[in-house]
Amino acid sequence: MSTIARNTDPESDPRVKAVFDDIRATRKSDFINNMWHYLAFDPALLESTWTEVKAVMATPSALDPLVKEMLYIAVSVTNGCTYCAHSHTAAAKAKGMSAEQHADLLRVISLAAKTNQLATALQLPVDPVFDADHRP
Amino acid sequence: MSTIARNTDPESDPRVKAVFDDIRATRKSDFINNMWHYLAFDPALLESTWTEVKAVMATPSALDPLVKEMLYIAVSVTNGCTYCAHSHTAAAKAKGMSAEQHADLLRVISLAAKTNQLATALQLPVDPVFDADHRP
Amino acid sequence: MSTIARNTDPESDPRVKAVFDDIRATRKSDFINNMWHYLAFDPALLESTWTEVKAVMATPSALDPLVKEMLYIAVSVTNGCTYCAHSHTAAAKAKGMSAEQHADLLRVISLAAKTNQLATALQLPVDPVFDADHRP
Amino acid sequence: MSTIARNTDPESDPRVKAVFDDIRATRKSDFINNMWHYLAFDPALLESTWTEVKAVMATPSALDPLVKEMLYIAVSVTNGCTYCAHSHTAAAKAKGMSAEQHADLLRVISLAAKTNQLATALQLPVDPVFDADHRP
Amino acid sequence: MSTIARNTDPESDPRVKAVFDDIRATRKSDFINNMWHYLAFDPALLESTWTEVKAVMATPSALDPLVKEMLYIAVSVTNGCTYCAHSHTAAAKAKGMSAEQHADLLRVISLAAKTNQLATALQLPVDPVFDADHRP
Amino acid sequence: MSTIARNTDPESDPRVKAVFDDIRATRKSDFINNMWHYLAFDPALLESTWTEVKAVMATPSALDPLVKEMLYIAVSVTNGCTYCAHSHTAAAKAKGMSAEQHADLLRVISLAAKTNQLATALQLPVDPVFDADHRP
Repeated sequence: MSTIARNTDPESDPRVKAVFDDIRATRKSDFINNMWHYLAFDPALLESTWTEVKAVMATPSALDPLVKEMLYIAVSVTNGCTYCAHSHTAAAKAKGMSAEQHADLLRVISLAAKTNQLATALQLPVDPVFDADHRP
Repeated sequence: MSTIARNTDPESDPRVKAVFDDIRATRKSDFINNMWHYLAFDPALLESTWTEVKAVMATPSALDPLVKEMLYIAVSVTNGCTYCAHSHTAAAKAKGMSAEQHADLLRVISLAAKTNQLATALQLPVDPVFDADHRP
Repeated sequence: MSTIARNTDPESDPRVKAVFDDIRATRKSDFINNMWHYLAFDPALLESTWTEVKAVMATPSALDPLVKEMLYIAVSVTNGCTYCAHSHTAAAKAKGMSAEQHADLLRVISLAAKTNQLATALQLPVDPVFDADHRP
Repeated sequence: MSTIARNTDPESDPRVKAVFDDIRATRKSDFINNMWHYLAFDPALLESTWTEVKAVMATPSALDPLVKEMLYIAVSVTNGCTYCAHSHTAAAKAKGMSAEQHADLLRVISLAAKTNQLATALQLPVDPVFDADHRP
Repeated sequence: MSTIARNTDPESDPRVKAVFDDIRATRKSDFINNMWHYLAFDPALLESTWTEVKAVMATPSALDPLVKEMLYIAVSVTNGCTYCAHSHTAAAKAKGMSAEQHADLLRVISLAAKTNQLATALQLPVDPVFDADHRP
Repeated sequence: MSTIARNTDPESDPRVKAVFDDIRATRKSDFINNMWHYLAFDPALLESTWTEVKAVMATPSALDPLVKEMLYIAVSVTNGCTYCAHSHTAAAKAKGMSAEQHADLLRVISLAAKTNQLATALQLPVDPVFDADHRP
């Protein structure tokens, strides 16, 4: 089920084909997952989304690629995004996440959700020392 | 402002004192942040929360301590937890997070929030290949 | 799957029948979607929910009906509500949302999710000029 | 309070100055709100964020500028983003949102939150007719 | 700070005065909290909100008044609503919530947030026996 | 679908078997729901999660067992957790939740979501009287 009909021949549009070609080249795989098939209903939205995902996730940066995938999982799970939890867990495994790291990831993100709930329930005042603007 | 009155003399309770002593010893610092001062209204809740935070965050495990702090930030920000965003960003900086890593963290978690929104809006069907149970 | 058993003969209850009749009359359609079939387990809850939905969504007001549906989609997607994302996207299309408007809606709500994440991560202080109470 | 120290002389960096100049020119105002002052700690992040905000929010598109601001409010409120609720409500007023439209916006987004909660609590099955892929 | 200017003389409007009088009579108190002062900018929204709050929260029903306040806290904290966490915690205390009950409430809602995160991260399939529609 | 492969013979691991035995003894039932089958991929995570769930939910405390289940539902629904909404609604029914109580629960948690949205949209200032630290 989806809210947009899946295009049955997306690559007949040259802008879509160019993005799909770049996804295949970047990932060194022929597989194009549903995210891109469905975004293809609007080539401009497909292009801008892929350009940003590629720049942030597939380009060397200050954080390790696997760490970036785990951060993606943390946000996706907290937002309750079914598709994203699946796709980014699969991606993290493909990038080498071990079962031990996976269990540790679950431990951290579930503990964070728990203490977030406590801090919000208590409406904790922020310790002044945590303020980046006013630290002496 | 808070929903619980801050105890003005929490360490008069020996169970609270024991937890506070362990926090100081574990962190090698005299500073006890508000989370623990306010949880002290219920010594059992204080003990169980600290025990779990120490086990997950202050014990060597499959993930690097800084990575765990960044995951904590990712969840806390997605949950909109003001106190937690402050305390864990401060903790990540104390563990060596550079400005470049901080900017990269922001790029990843904000992109994740964006694509979560797209995937949920499109109600994307999960690609069968992502299913851990049914992969051939 | 659901947490309440679907009533197989809801209209045998006159209060349910009255609501269903009003839904059909208001929408000029015989179709009653699952929301109302399941809420029928408690006629009072069904009545109060339909009364409010009709007053807000099916009554002329300061905002255009299509704009109201798109706002409904924005909230539903942000809350991760599968049923609501589907039903309100279908409703928006029935009220004339074009593919271009749909793509634009996705662009705005995904950008909002992204900058929300940045603002919360940075814990941005609110500019005093934004305060409705204290603007000079 | 914030998690990043506010740069006291951001425009000494030519990349920051270029973005700030474009913000002033686009908005025809000298006022630069805190979002941009704080993002200035990382010029690349500032540039990419402003470029996207300008493209989506300050460029004519399929949706009316005021509608886009109201959608932004809907997402920001649902995400509980304090800064964003303030800044986008101020922006919507600047674009002409009347008190009647504001009240109507509140009615729609609060009703949506309510029925989202009901639909999720009931775990309503999606009516097949809502599926864009399988509609006959 | 707020997004609506607080009306300095709300009771000059007879519809507002009628609601405020009913709040005072229902609660047997002269105190009117900010929620109602700010909603007074739109008398119709004020009326409909108060009518519903009174019907659900101040009318005897299948659940105990204190239980209803604790459920309100659970939702408010999970949504990260600062105002609501404060106002409903104060209301629960006024209705007799003890420190032990408060600590227990925190234990349950923080554990729920933690296991929600685990279930979503694992994308657990729902056990067929949990389905209300298909239980044999 | 899930992100972890379900272990087909979890009780071959003595740590898993011990937890499963305790779940069966505590609940006086042979049924082990999916949460525990999937967590079994990491025996330490399984143990710590079950230990906490048992301590909070299956041990007499200041709140009634059914109230605790309803609080669990409130958090789970607000977080949009499909599995948890199902499992805890089933548990609440097993503990005696009537249809009237269920409808009342839905009324309270959906109203809370609605007024949370209003309070956040208005960015209501917290009434000083609600502050536990500063009440005279």
